[in-house]
This record gives sequence, C-alpha cells and structure tokens, in this order.
Amino acid sequence: MKKRIAILLSGRGSNFEAIARNVASGALDAEIAVVISNRPGAAGLAAAEKLGIPAVTIPSRGMEREAYDALLVEELRRHRADLVCLAGFMRFLSPVFVRAFPNRVLNIHPSLLPSFPGLEAQRQALEHGVKISGCTVHFVDEDLDHGPIILQAAVAVEDGDTEATLSARILKEEHRIYSEAIRLVLAGAVRVENRRVIQNRGARV
Amino acid sequence: MKKRIAILLSGRGSNFEAIARNVASGALDAEIAVVISNRPGAAGLAAAEKLGIPAVTIPSRGMEREAYDALLVEELRRHRADLVCLAGFMRFLSPVFVRAFPNRVLNIHPSLLPSFPGLEAQRQALEHGVKISGCTVHFVDEDLDHGPIILQAAVAVEDGDTEATLSARILKEEHRIYSEAIRLVLAGAVRVENRRVIQNRGARV
Repeated sequence: MKKRIAILLSGRGSNFEAIARNVASGALDAEIAVVISNRPGAAGLAAAEKLGIPAVTIPSRGMEREAYDALLVEELRRHRADLVCLAGFMRFLSPVFVRAFPNRVLNIHPSLLPSFPGLEAQRQALEHGVKISGCTVHFVDEDLDHGPIILQAAVAVEDGDTEATLSARILKEEHRIYSEAIRLVLAGAVRVENRRVIQNRGARV
Repeated sequence: MKKRIAILLSGRGSNFEAIARNVASGALDAEIAVVISNRPGAAGLAAAEKLGIPAVTIPSRGMEREAYDALLVEELRRHRADLVCLAGFMRFLSPVFVRAFPNRVLNIHPSLLPSFPGLEAQRQALEHGVKISGCTVHFVDEDLDHGPIILQAAVAVEDGDTEATLSARILKEEHRIYSEAIRLVLAGAVRVENRRVIQNRGARV
C-alpha cells in the first residue's frame, strides 16, 4: 500500500505542487492523503481540489496553540498520514504536535541552516552578503527551523541578485530536494543519530 | 611594483603555504613581505625562512591586546604591507588594529559563515549534522568571524566524515579561494556596500 503524505500550508504551497507533480509522475511512490491549511482561501487548497486531493481548512486565528495542534493531530490521524510535510505553513508547532509524529514531520527552509532561520531567509542572506545560500529539508523538532537535517542544496548568490531572483534560484532546488528527502524517509532509508541524519547502508532507495 | 602581502599566523599556516605557492608560480601577482607569528617556534616561521621570506615573532603571551596590536601595526607598516592575511592566527584583533587597515585585513574560516563561527568549525558542522559546509574568505571587522564576505566555497559533508576528512576536503577549497580573494582585493576589483562585497564591473582581474 502506498504511504500517505499530509501537507500543511498557509498559502500557495509551491512545494506542495512540486510534490504533487512527483507523485503524479511516479517519481515519488506515495499518495497525498490530505492538504490542510490554517488560512481559509489559501491558494494551495484550490490547487489540491483541482487535483482531487482532500483539502481541509482548520482556521487557526484566535486559537491557543495546543488546542489548535490537537485538532490538527486528530485530522491527520483521521487521514492516516504516514508523514507530515510543511509547505509554507506559517505557524509554529507545539511540542504536543511534534511528539505525536516523532521524526515524521518534515519542513523545508530557504537557507543553508543553521544560517538564517526564521522569516525572509533569502533577504537575510542577501543582507548578510553571503556568496552561497541554498535550502534545507529537516525533521521538525520543538525549536524553529532547527531539527535534524536530511538534505541540503547550495546555490550561488550573484552580485545582481534581488530577493526575487535569489528566491527563484533556491526554489528550484527546494522542489528537487524536498521530494528526494520524502522518498528517503518513506523508504526508511535514514536514521537519526544525535543530530546527524545518516543513510542506512544498503537501503533500497 | 608588486603589492605586498603580510601573513599573520600562529601555527603551520597551511594557507600561507598555498599563498606562497601561488606567488611563486605567478598565479598571484604579489609578494609576501613578511610572516609574523605570535607564537615562538610556529612551524610557519620555519617555512617562511626556507622560502627566503622575512619571518618575525612578536610574542603575545601576557600582553594587553591593544599594546600588542600596536606592535603588530608598527611591524606591518615597517614592512609596507598593502594587505594583511590571517592564516590560522589564533588571536582576536582589537578595533585599533582593524581601523589601522580598513578593508585590508582578510581572514579565512572553515565554514560557510554565518554558520559555525569560532573554534573547531568543522566539528561544529559535523555535530550539527549539516549536509553542506565549506569555507569563507572575509574582511576582518571588529567582531569574530563576522566581516563582509568576499568568497565562499561549498563542500558536501559525507555520512562517514570525521573531523579530519571533512577538514581536509574544506582545506582544499580554502587554498583555492584564499588566493582568489587576495587577487580580487589587490586588483581593486571589489567594493563593500553595507555588508555585501560586489565585484566592480569591468575590473581587470
């Protein structure tokens, strides 16, 4: 039986669309069980519906974090999610949530972590003047943009870059490595040792 | 007349040796005016002498930082240094020193700054579990491993890496980009805008 991925997003979720393309093409042997948004009207919801994927809004506004996260966990269990992938989900997850899915929540961040966690990572990179930036897929733990790193990809920062041009260059790599990381995790091909994510020898990936 | 580079080191100074090789081969159009160590008996001093380069020890032990830095500045001026390159110089430089050579002091650091400043950067990278690390050549400012970044190079971190294997892979890139950054700075090919180091259009480099 195919493994079931749940996507959490707050906006367009371009990484969701890339994952959906890889599922559709067979490059990623899984199915997307549900797309959940904390914001009503998120563009990612319409995209999901168009693809025939269940799309659910659970509005977070005004809710206590732990109460909200309990609702999320319930919805994810109802859809029997094997893996939860954040794709521009603009909300910090509580320990309650993280512990409900140990090493089964992934996030992608548009910098080479630990550099530039938090919002506007590409702008932070430009303002800091780095010559190399990139993106990071990591397990989600209880700290922001912090958990064990599964894959990273580097891109050059050019002198003429704006936030838009750098973001576009990084996004191309995001679309590539997020699906690759999902594939590794769903295949059971990696293990976490302290903070290091190690590929199992001889794993079929 | 050739531009004059001064090297500050505390140990072997493998980056010094790489710079010296590039000077000897003509790949770097400059001369090494002096090698200064704060530690008596540093291996880099013997290497300098072997190459016929003036080698000076100015012991730092027990000295106040500003008094020491004043001695350093005096010695560098005596040797008419156009550019000061730190190559494993295990001492924090005071504002007095930095202001004496504005945008003319370079350092190389074995990580993709701003990740992993300070000592044992390679070990920090391994323990954090990054999949990409590298090295950074930057102008020295008044904060540790912090000034505007001239060049960076990325290397993959492999699952089986130890501190030694990762350090060796990074060092190879250090030897390459340090000379390249020196070349850019000596040619006047870069300028600093806020924190960003930008190559001048049409610069002959």
